[in-house]
Amino acid sequence: MAIATVTVVPLGTADPSLSAYIREVIQAAEAAAGVKVLVGPNGTTLEGELDAVFAAVRAMHEIPFAAGARRVMTLVNVDDRRDKALTIEGKLKAVGR
Amino acid sequence: MAIATVTVVPLGTADPSLSAYIREVIQAAEAAAGVKVLVGPNGTTLEGELDAVFAAVRAMHEIPFAAGARRVMTLVNVDDRRDKALTIEGKLKAVGR
Amino acid sequence: MAIATVTVVPLGTADPSLSAYIREVIQAAEAAAGVKVLVGPNGTTLEGELDAVFAAVRAMHEIPFAAGARRVMTLVNVDDRRDKALTIEGKLKAVGR
Amino acid sequence: MAIATVTVVPLGTADPSLSAYIREVIQAAEAAAGVKVLVGPNGTTLEGELDAVFAAVRAMHEIPFAAGARRVMTLVNVDDRRDKALTIEGKLKAVGR
Repeated sequence: MAIATVTVVPLGTADPSLSAYIREVIQAAEAAAGVKVLVGPNGTTLEGELDAVFAAVRAMHEIPFAAGARRVMTLVNVDDRRDKALTIEGKLKAVGR
Repeated sequence: MAIATVTVVPLGTADPSLSAYIREVIQAAEAAAGVKVLVGPNGTTLEGELDAVFAAVRAMHEIPFAAGARRVMTLVNVDDRRDKALTIEGKLKAVGR
Repeated sequence: MAIATVTVVPLGTADPSLSAYIREVIQAAEAAAGVKVLVGPNGTTLEGELDAVFAAVRAMHEIPFAAGARRVMTLVNVDDRRDKALTIEGKLKAVGR
Repeated sequence: MAIATVTVVPLGTADPSLSAYIREVIQAAEAAAGVKVLVGPNGTTLEGELDAVFAAVRAMHEIPFAAGARRVMTLVNVDDRRDKALTIEGKLKAVGR
């Protein structure tokens, strides 16, 4: 299992408010197969098998274009550990949350 | 007000478990003046005046060295908006959370 | 065409020197189909069709595991523009380099 | 010495072309005291003492606001190693460039 935090940002949108785009990006994450989703203030975190996570990122990245954006910047931070199970809940517990 | 998500990672630590370091990094964030802190699975989000946020990042980055690390990678994603107030709570509400 | 900068970092490697891993990660990028590669000090930049870029990222991420790492963090910054051609050379020229 | 790659992106700029902003951001990096600068396609890399690097990042982040942007996202990836000298040139050589 991998955990990836994903930030999808349309550029050149005239209005600096991006939440209409981001709501749809989050919906795409929630609709993706095989991933758990945790929404954060600067990005959406996905938990799942690595290929499912990459497929979700790919789908999320496409959303702002479908909504009219001409340029999209997508940031991904993948944490992938193979000597023990890695979960969002486990990572938060490990730091005392 | 700016919102920054910060990921501090010690490199070359022998053990791939980093939570002992990360707990102290979070404590440094919580001890920093003028910032609100939200802990996430892949990073810690800070809200505050930009200079307070940068000072907190600087303090967090130093923590793993004090705990013995020889190399630290710190990732920062700063979102700074000046035409309206930007808060962690506001950003989450804007996307329906 | 998309341009992505990719940083692949093995965690918990005992030695903070990571260049032996990174050399192989770069080789994986250079062996990937359909992408141009520019090596930088903190990451490797890929230029190509978006699916080719994602496939290269996926291959690069796997390399440190094959070399013995138990945990890998991979950072990706994808810049994807669809109203005009986006190339590494064009981006550098546009800022006067 | 630390090495940081910095990406400064104005959001909500109407035009998806950002190079006019980025040229000024790079000039701010080059004008900053105590840092070497290497321009890349997705970000600008700084080499210097950690405090000089942070001061340069702070100055770069401010530039798009001075040029009229209402929202700026700044990404920073700091690599800081204290058991041996870390330079841009050394990192590139270590991976065979």
